[in-house]
Amino acid sequence: MDLGIVTIGTELLLGFTVDTNSAFAGGQLAGVGVRVVRRTAVADTPHAIRSAVSEGLVRTGAVLTTGGLGPTRDDISKLVVAELFDAPLEFREEIWDHVVARFKRYGRVPSPSNRSQAEMPKGAVELRNQWGSAPGIWLEATPGLVVMLPGVPREMRNLLIHEVLPRLAERSTGSVIRSRTLRTTAIGESVLAERMGAIEQEIAPLTLAYLPDIGSVDLRLTAWDLPADEADRRLGDGLALLRARAGDHAFGEGETDLAEVVLAAARRVGATIATAESCTGGLVGGRLTAIPGSSDVVLGGIIAYADRVKERTLEVPVALLKAHGAVSEPVVRAMAEGAARRLGATLTIAVTGISGPGGGSEEKPVGTTWFATHWQGRTESVKQILFGERDEIRARAAQVALYLMWRRLLQR
Amino acid sequence: MDLGIVTIGTELLLGFTVDTNSAFAGGQLAGVGVRVVRRTAVADTPHAIRSAVSEGLVRTGAVLTTGGLGPTRDDISKLVVAELFDAPLEFREEIWDHVVARFKRYGRVPSPSNRSQAEMPKGAVELRNQWGSAPGIWLEATPGLVVMLPGVPREMRNLLIHEVLPRLAERSTGSVIRSRTLRTTAIGESVLAERMGAIEQEIAPLTLAYLPDIGSVDLRLTAWDLPADEADRRLGDGLALLRARAGDHAFGEGETDLAEVVLAAARRVGATIATAESCTGGLVGGRLTAIPGSSDVVLGGIIAYADRVKERTLEVPVALLKAHGAVSEPVVRAMAEGAARRLGATLTIAVTGISGPGGGSEEKPVGTTWFATHWQGRTESVKQILFGERDEIRARAAQVALYLMWRRLLQR
Repeated sequence: MDLGIVTIGTELLLGFTVDTNSAFAGGQLAGVGVRVVRRTAVADTPHAIRSAVSEGLVRTGAVLTTGGLGPTRDDISKLVVAELFDAPLEFREEIWDHVVARFKRYGRVPSPSNRSQAEMPKGAVELRNQWGSAPGIWLEATPGLVVMLPGVPREMRNLLIHEVLPRLAERSTGSVIRSRTLRTTAIGESVLAERMGAIEQEIAPLTLAYLPDIGSVDLRLTAWDLPADEADRRLGDGLALLRARAGDHAFGEGETDLAEVVLAAARRVGATIATAESCTGGLVGGRLTAIPGSSDVVLGGIIAYADRVKERTLEVPVALLKAHGAVSEPVVRAMAEGAARRLGATLTIAVTGISGPGGGSEEKPVGTTWFATHWQGRTESVKQILFGERDEIRARAAQVALYLMWRRLLQR
Repeated sequence: MDLGIVTIGTELLLGFTVDTNSAFAGGQLAGVGVRVVRRTAVADTPHAIRSAVSEGLVRTGAVLTTGGLGPTRDDISKLVVAELFDAPLEFREEIWDHVVARFKRYGRVPSPSNRSQAEMPKGAVELRNQWGSAPGIWLEATPGLVVMLPGVPREMRNLLIHEVLPRLAERSTGSVIRSRTLRTTAIGESVLAERMGAIEQEIAPLTLAYLPDIGSVDLRLTAWDLPADEADRRLGDGLALLRARAGDHAFGEGETDLAEVVLAAARRVGATIATAESCTGGLVGGRLTAIPGSSDVVLGGIIAYADRVKERTLEVPVALLKAHGAVSEPVVRAMAEGAARRLGATLTIAVTGISGPGGGSEEKPVGTTWFATHWQGRTESVKQILFGERDEIRARAAQVALYLMWRRLLQR
């Protein structure tokens, strides 16, 4: 089944808003075998909406619209579609009751302009919106199928998943486009590709895409137009193969955050964690404590940006700082050990580096970063030269720090 | 002048990629008086590209394409446009020289497939790409104007700004759509709106939009279809008015980060900064040290996630923790004062709160957050109940912390 997406909103065309809805919808629809063949963004004027929707109906017979269902002038999109389908708007008491109840829950009363949200083209099915007040609309008649969803991302996404996809899946041929993603870190794209070898031939007809990001490379496997159960089986097999080849560098699937993996590994061995950060300035602590429930593992950390703080709170000897500089192996080791003593954690990580743009030298160029982990009485240290702008270098350094902690926790 | 944007790429339709180029282009084009009337995303097949481009030419006589200029099969988009214009592709030596030189700079040699990047439709102007190897194309003839840019965001944006906008501005009527944005924080949208009063009438014909984000509300003023100089003058006057009404809550314009503002204020009075973070776990430190050159002001901080760390490194008396709990006024004050003693900074900020999802109680619900600043020997503390999910609460808390530091630095 083919479908066109029409996104409605002058704000989109002017660049005031980035359209993230369409990408989300495209992926979800492909997953149930509906292929988006065109996406059109238009202003919220009757003429622009009418032409985009009717062109879409001619092209594929099915159109999904997002936006233009608010209680104000946005309503024109509903009117336009009602006209296209020759299906006059009618007021529906049960939708109005839902709107009133929703407002009441937040101690408010709907204004008269909200009444239009309870209007539906004759013959349309209401897609009940539990996440907002404007209902979605499912209208199917001679011109084809039009599904209208509000533009607010949370409402749009929930309505799509809970109301639209099940209805579309029913009429799908069963052929789907589905993806699964393996996340890897601490390995470059080209080295990873070498490890994968001729995997493309082994996993065919699945395709493999390398998606490098800051500090990670995601491997996306895609099944194109396969029956759903075959797609899932092949994706499972393919993922296992990827995982075997990626080895230690594969840390999770989908949206998994490396910080979650570190916390889970720490919990398994009963470790407590503390950080000693210079160049990352709190990013490693921030990543770890972003995960709900991290307080059972993370004790805290010291942001030792200035040398004076490295001395005072991490007990780094002044002599070491003077002899080797703050970005050096002896200092990073002393930082990790100082954090263990001062914060009483069983696993500590220390990071010190030059994030730029200034501060680099021939001997220690921008990006030079030293890491040390202290675990079970033993300190390990490693240097990396990280590339990119300041923000990238810092984000990469935080990612490497998490990776090193994870690997240490897996040591026996 | 009206124009259509066509973005080319099957990845976009499948939702593998979010299209940020179009929003950027829309805003930039409006700024020189070119209005995007429709945006279309299509797969990279000849048929789909041809129909979208030719429909766009019929609609407005001007089309900007992004994507589909790579060295591989993507090249079809160039072929399709060449056919539409009846302008056969020709190999241009000077473009090839540029491609070769570019590869050489990175120690590489272009492959034969790169040769196609030096091909241009007859009569087209090369838009020299200094940020990548695929040149942009400016082709104007009987069917209208087609501008083709590569899809890589950095290349697309630079070519748009340096090569496309100046050419379009020349033929503009002089009427532009331009915006300026005032950033505010620590004030809710509705309170801000009350302060603004009937400002919409005073600033007309400019329009005002409220853009709430986590911890901030941006005020966007827009001039619609005004001569460029009048637009700029009115925007300047309007912004001054907004700034006066927003008072202490206005911290900058455009993309300014509150952390930059804090650092600048600290530099002006010769302050040094240290943080003592519990619930934010390093986010405040991370925000501050993200700014290049922050090391002249930021000494460091202590992430005191566990009570034990609050005692050990911030010298918070156990009795206080026992009597009042970690999320309390006495503890947050002790944290700020402990950080000042231990880290030797002249300005310190302490944050302790319950970010959820667990840990809340009737007396201290999720979101309860205490802040303290210590500056010039005096400690000030304040409680806020922050709302949202865990990530939002933490981000809001970091923003409030920065705001409080800034306000203290302005005290005399």
